[in-house]
Amino acid sequence: MAITDIVGYIAAIGTTGAFIPQAFKVYKTKKTEDLSLGTFLLFSTGVLLWTVYGVFINSVPVILSNGITFFISCYILVMIIKGKKSEKQKIINDN
Amino acid sequence: MAITDIVGYIAAIGTTGAFIPQAFKVYKTKKTEDLSLGTFLLFSTGVLLWTVYGVFINSVPVILSNGITFFISCYILVMIIKGKKSEKQKIINDN
Repeated sequence: MAITDIVGYIAAIGTTGAFIPQAFKVYKTKKTEDLSLGTFLLFSTGVLLWTVYGVFINSVPVILSNGITFFISCYILVMIIKGKKSEKQKIINDN
Repeated sequence: MAITDIVGYIAAIGTTGAFIPQAFKVYKTKKTEDLSLGTFLLFSTGVLLWTVYGVFINSVPVILSNGITFFISCYILVMIIKGKKSEKQKIINDN
């Protein structure tokens, strides 16, 4: 395998696996206050479009890596939205 | 432009721009407690390797989008490390 391909594969593993620790942290602590809703909304949309792009160009690595990242990113996104909702509810209950 | 290219470009803008709101949030609040150090360490390494890969394959879009994301991700990473350090210092001072 050429050095170019090796660098590409390690890069793909890095950016695909990157959100696993964040998802675990959110799962464990249930705290998402410092996470940006906009970031995970944009990122989830972006990786979904990358997956669609992978289907168009018939690239299994593009489909796989972005498809997996899409599900991880969506989990974090849902937890951020849930966090914001319970925060709002708390303010209503406190008043 | 073909629909495939349009989807690819929108995907690239989405995943490149995604971390700007998170960087702004960290800059404004200086709070990084809920962010995963592992995620931003892996992600920064991954996008740096994508940039190197872009140099190898001579692709300006790959270099540009990942190069920009690298700097944004590194800023968030540095702020997480700073946050962890001041947290540790607080524990030492409290005891």
